Amino acid sequence: MTDSWFEETLYANFQLRLRINNVLHHQKTDYQDLIVFENGQFGRVLALDGAIQTTEADEFFYHEMLAHPPIFAHGDVKRVLIVGGGDGGALEEVLKHPVEKAVMVEIDPTVIKLSKKYLPAISAGAFEDPRTEIVIQDGTKFVSETKERFDVIVIDSTDPIGPATALFQKTFYENCKRCLTEKGILITQSGVPFLQADEARDVHRHLRTLFPDHGFYTVPVPTYSGGFMVLGWASRSDQNRAVSRDRLERRYTASGIATRYYNPDIHLAAFALPNYIRELMG
Amino acid sequence: MTDSWFEETLYANFQLRLRINNVLHHQKTDYQDLIVFENGQFGRVLALDGAIQTTEADEFFYHEMLAHPPIFAHGDVKRVLIVGGGDGGALEEVLKHPVEKAVMVEIDPTVIKLSKKYLPAISAGAFEDPRTEIVIQDGTKFVSETKERFDVIVIDSTDPIGPATALFQKTFYENCKRCLTEKGILITQSGVPFLQADEARDVHRHLRTLFPDHGFYTVPVPTYSGGFMVLGWASRSDQNRAVSRDRLERRYTASGIATRYYNPDIHLAAFALPNYIRELMG
Repeated sequence: MTDSWFEETLYANFQLRLRINNVLHHQKTDYQDLIVFENGQFGRVLALDGAIQTTEADEFFYHEMLAHPPIFAHGDVKRVLIVGGGDGGALEEVLKHPVEKAVMVEIDPTVIKLSKKYLPAISAGAFEDPRTEIVIQDGTKFVSETKERFDVIVIDSTDPIGPATALFQKTFYENCKRCLTEKGILITQSGVPFLQADEARDVHRHLRTLFPDHGFYTVPVPTYSGGFMVLGWASRSDQNRAVSRDRLERRYTASGIATRYYNPDIHLAAFALPNYIRELMG
Repeated sequence: MTDSWFEETLYANFQLRLRINNVLHHQKTDYQDLIVFENGQFGRVLALDGAIQTTEADEFFYHEMLAHPPIFAHGDVKRVLIVGGGDGGALEEVLKHPVEKAVMVEIDPTVIKLSKKYLPAISAGAFEDPRTEIVIQDGTKFVSETKERFDVIVIDSTDPIGPATALFQKTFYENCKRCLTEKGILITQSGVPFLQADEARDVHRHLRTLFPDHGFYTVPVPTYSGGFMVLGWASRSDQNRAVSRDRLERRYTASGIATRYYNPDIHLAAFALPNYIRELMG
């Protein structure tokens, strides 16, 4: 980082570089290097270990697509588990639905604390919602021990460096499967395949081994460079994926949820994968 | 630009920054500042006036989506006009189809000369194809004067700064319409709406005024930061857009064209637009 620019350190040969108008907070937490700063294009920005996690301006792409496709596809989601996601953005989108309970398991309490303080627009009160339960714990430990079952599990993790590495292992996915209801859906952040082909390939290999219905859907998040990010989708049931456009439209309209990225056409279109992504799925 | 990094100057508060392993060429042409350099992630890179135009690694996203959707949708394209596109990437994709003739009108001969020399992998011999006709001329002048008619016109321009400004004016689109056959399709580079909302809005306003069938389709090009780029689609006929998946599949399979981004599912999915893009279309 220079005096006035934040430079992503994910890749050796190129960087996304955001001007720092103002550093709001910078510290080493117990788990990672965390910075929150203001940028003239993206508003407030949260980065962990040199990688941008979320920004006020573009968080809606990613958080809407983590939450709405599985919940609208399922049609009767009561209980949601979010692993990671300490900024509260996925939690906020989930709670726009009439779910009974949303459990967030975040390993790093400092991410939650500072997101509440500096990025309140992203969680928009979701941490205070009576349906929210926050568990400060390693997500792998939680899913290996809990007796609860969830209709949707959202793995909103960083890339597999630092504390998130264990969230990309087969054992973790096995335990997630155990915690899913029969028709339940697992959604997992799987990187940007054009630049992180190994990450997407590894996730897909695990999901394919464990779930009859498995695949990716896409979202092009502006501050995650490299074209489409893919989100892993896995379920014991292929009913969710097969939901009709009409049914999605009815559920979306009835929900009254205002979205900036998601709509039923985008929902269905997101499952169309370009050849370079199909190829790495083997 | 520092000694070792190319920094895009499109936006004040953020930059895509590519390490320069080796500058192959750098000059002021009669029209623009042109640089070709080598980068460890993207291969050879062409930038004009501080904006990345194309790279060896990701050119396929953009060039495939400029050429294949209109040509496969139409089904009987004989004559194609490309305005701009001096790197030859769109031309190469067009010529994979059994077209009779492809006319490229490029204002800056230096772009063609240096692309042939330093980026031969992008045009892959397309400039030497006997069906190719190169016209060094201002595209606005060409479409205002030519007596030829085209089944597809592809406007492969830079953003509306520098020499491309006139390619975003209504008069130019009117003349393109005059040069289109009855079922013909106009495709036009319309920027990245998340960051360049005015560019997309202006293009759409013009297309809507002039063509019964008008809209955008999307492609997330890695080195065009900001999520989806949109390509304008305009035609007197709505038959092209309404092409069925089966028909696209048959045409694609019969063509034998190997693609890395495009396929019939992506073709249809690309017309689904997220809400933030729908909204700027008014």
